Formats: sequence, structure tokens, C-alpha cells
Amino acid sequence: MPQSSGYVLYYWRGIPGRGEYVRLAFEYAGVPYTEHMNNGTLVSTITNPAQSSHPPAFAPPALKLPSGRFLSQTPAILNHIAPKFGLAGDKEGEDAEERRSSVNQLVLTALDLSNESHDLHHPLASDLYYEDQKDASIKRAVSYRGYRIPKFLKHFQTVLATNPDTPADGTYLVGTKTTTADLVLFHVLCGVSYVVPRRMAVLKASGEYDNVFKLKERIENEKGIKEYLASPRRQPFNEHGVYRHYPELDDEE
Amino acid sequence: MPQSSGYVLYYWRGIPGRGEYVRLAFEYAGVPYTEHMNNGTLVSTITNPAQSSHPPAFAPPALKLPSGRFLSQTPAILNHIAPKFGLAGDKEGEDAEERRSSVNQLVLTALDLSNESHDLHHPLASDLYYEDQKDASIKRAVSYRGYRIPKFLKHFQTVLATNPDTPADGTYLVGTKTTTADLVLFHVLCGVSYVVPRRMAVLKASGEYDNVFKLKERIENEKGIKEYLASPRRQPFNEHGVYRHYPELDDEE
Repeated sequence: MPQSSGYVLYYWRGIPGRGEYVRLAFEYAGVPYTEHMNNGTLVSTITNPAQSSHPPAFAPPALKLPSGRFLSQTPAILNHIAPKFGLAGDKEGEDAEERRSSVNQLVLTALDLSNESHDLHHPLASDLYYEDQKDASIKRAVSYRGYRIPKFLKHFQTVLATNPDTPADGTYLVGTKTTTADLVLFHVLCGVSYVVPRRMAVLKASGEYDNVFKLKERIENEKGIKEYLASPRRQPFNEHGVYRHYPELDDEE
Repeated sequence: MPQSSGYVLYYWRGIPGRGEYVRLAFEYAGVPYTEHMNNGTLVSTITNPAQSSHPPAFAPPALKLPSGRFLSQTPAILNHIAPKFGLAGDKEGEDAEERRSSVNQLVLTALDLSNESHDLHHPLASDLYYEDQKDASIKRAVSYRGYRIPKFLKHFQTVLATNPDTPADGTYLVGTKTTTADLVLFHVLCGVSYVVPRRMAVLKASGEYDNVFKLKERIENEKGIKEYLASPRRQPFNEHGVYRHYPELDDEE
């Protein structure tokens, strides 16, 4: 990004992770931001009130606001910037706070699937390696693939198909404009498709979630996002992030 | 509560669950609400846009607002009502939205420990019984007791001890007034103390988290909350909720 607007994102170096949900909002809105990425001192900076602000963060990501205040927790960051960036789904004649809260609701639901995708490879302890809990992961993957992913896809399909502001084949979760909810769901779909590609191919081919997969296609071609995805700022998924691909966890059902 | 203000909470019958975080905000603020509790049709009501509003809920709790809109996701509900109920920590001369977002950040962090307490007894699949994943739970409990609970307690202790608006032994997470963050942390502490009482007794006796345990005592004596806790509206924890006590998951370390 060309220059600073006063926003600084603090996140781990080398993975898209939860920071990606914040990046996508900036990239889509065209708001400049800088990144502070330093594995050695990142956590001690944002969790220490003497170095950040009160209240300190529990964990990355944290966003330094133009005022100097640090804000953490992905959904809190997104809900804070959404109305400022035009991503909260304003609609004339409707209570803006209510619509913003509906967007927040959908962001939180999509992030629940993000969290479940993390817990897939860490079902027993976040302080153990995957290899030390692989057997439990393989068991958890049965429910993740067969029950959880379809439940979330069905929900978002319903939200899209019943949006009163768009046609039945619409791709906007709320209203007729892109919101943080659309952007978060897009990245969750990217992530889950990376984690269990065989399963997601079957679900896509079923035709039951067409609006959801069309939303993914729409977002990846949106102005701002298309350029971002082609840039080096878009980091690939790998073996250290929220979304990880272990072949033993994937299957068609 | 005496009469309706137009707010209706939709949640499961018979457990405090995640609905409790919403109840506490109403009870502390003294805002009347009614409850819709029907195990048979609860989910089909709130997840069906024809019966609720757009976007439909993914899961309970859902709050019907006076406008008729349904809002779900516990943190979205709390962030929506916090400023209306005076629970968002307003402070003169400070950006009200920024402070509200800091409260939201802390609510989300406390709810993360709530979610981890749920996943303790359901580490492999939410659609299996505890008995079918008990061995994995016993393994997960080692990290939950020894690593996760102290990490959260230490964080909230730091937040309380470094609040610039209160003394070093203060019990307000943000500013000098009770916020939704205080209320949520209170109930999380109630819940975790129910899940692993032996472990929590050791952590309390360590003296390292005195502000946190003092916050719990303060909240349970606050006007509105004290009366609520003594009323039949405060439901006990049991074997069906977010917080469950299985003796094999508790230990002193």
C-alpha cells in the first residue's frame, strides 16, 4: 500500500491467518495500512499495556487505530471499521446500527467456521503440535466434513437466497453492497477449500450451495480484491496457519 | 421481569448457557425482557427467515429487538445493546465508539474461554455425546487447566491492574463503570469454577489473580445482579450446558 493512513496491523509474519480478515477489509475499501510483523516481539508488544494501550490484547491480530488506540479480536476490529469503510451495509430508511449488527452477526458465524477449522488440527491443546494430537484430529475431521461444513454452507445459502434486497440467486449476505460479512465468508471458503479440497469439491458439485460458491467467485473479482489476490501481499496458506491441509483429514464425505 | 419492553430472548429451556450473558445485561441494566423458551420449535423459528427476520440465526441465543429484527450471536447482541443500556463504558472526552469496541474486544476474549470450556467436553464433535469423546476430553483438560485458564486469568488480571481510570486493585475492566465485559467475565468465572472447582481453588489461593476474583465478588453483589442471582430466573449449571462438571476433568494442576 502506498502510504500510511494511521492504521497499523499487528500480526504474525508468514501466514494469512486471522489477520487476513482485516486485510481484506482494507484492500476492498482501498484504505491504506501498514503492517507490523515481527515474530520475536509481536505478542509482547500488543499484550503489554505499557507498549500498546489499555486494554492490552490477548492475542494477535491487533489494529492500531489513527488515535493510537490498539484494538484486538478480529470481530471487534471488523465491527469497528465496517461503518467507517462503508462495509456495514447501510440502507436508506433502515436503522444503521441494526444493520451493522446483522453484519456483525454474520461475520461472527463465518468466523466460527474459521475457528472450527483451526481446532480441527488442534482438538486437544493449542500448546501441542499437530503430530501429538493427530489421532484426535482424524476423528474430529469426520464431524467437520460431514456435519459442520454442510451446516454452515446451508446457513449461508439460506441467508443469500432469502435476502429481500436481491434476487434468489444473489450473492450479497446483507443488502446490495459488499460488507465485511461477504469478505470474511469469502476467505473462510478459500480456507476450507484448502483444508479439505476433496470434500468441498463434492459439496460444490451437489448444487445445493450455488449462491455461496458464486459469492466466492464474485468477491475474488471485485475491484481491490482482484488486484490484492494477484499481489505478493496475499500470502499462500501453509502448514503454520489457521487453515492447514493434511491429506489424512480430507475425504469426499 | 414485570413487563415487556419489546425485547424477547430466544434460548434453550433449562440451562443458563450462552443466553446467560444476555440475561445478565438486561438484569443489571434493569431493562425488562421476556423469554421464548421452547425446545421443540426454538431452532426452527430463529433459523427460518420466514418466521424471524433476515438474516436468520445460525444458532441460539437470538434476541428479538423492539423493531422486530432478530439478532443472534452472543457478542453481536451484547455489542448492540451495550450503548443503549449504558454498558459500553462511556467516558467524557473519549471516542465513545472506540471505547465500545474495547469493551467488545474484552467480551470476545472472555467468550473465547466460554467456548473453550464447551469444547472441553466436546473436543471431537458437537454431534457426539461426551461419553463418546471422554478420553479426548481428559487429554484436553490437561491443557485447559494448566495452560489456558491461567493464560486468560493473567490477561484479565493485567487488564484490571493497569486500568488507568482505577486503582491498581481495581475491578473494572474498562473505565469506572460496569460494562458488558465485566458481566461476561463474571459469568465465565462462575462457569469455570463449576467446571474445575479444585483447579480454580488453587489458582485463587495463589494470589496472582486477586483483582479477577474480586471482580467476581463485586458483580455478584451489584444491584440488579444480587436480586437476580437469588431469583428462580438464575438457573443452576447442569449436565447439559456450556459449563459441565465431570470430576475426571478436574485436578489441582
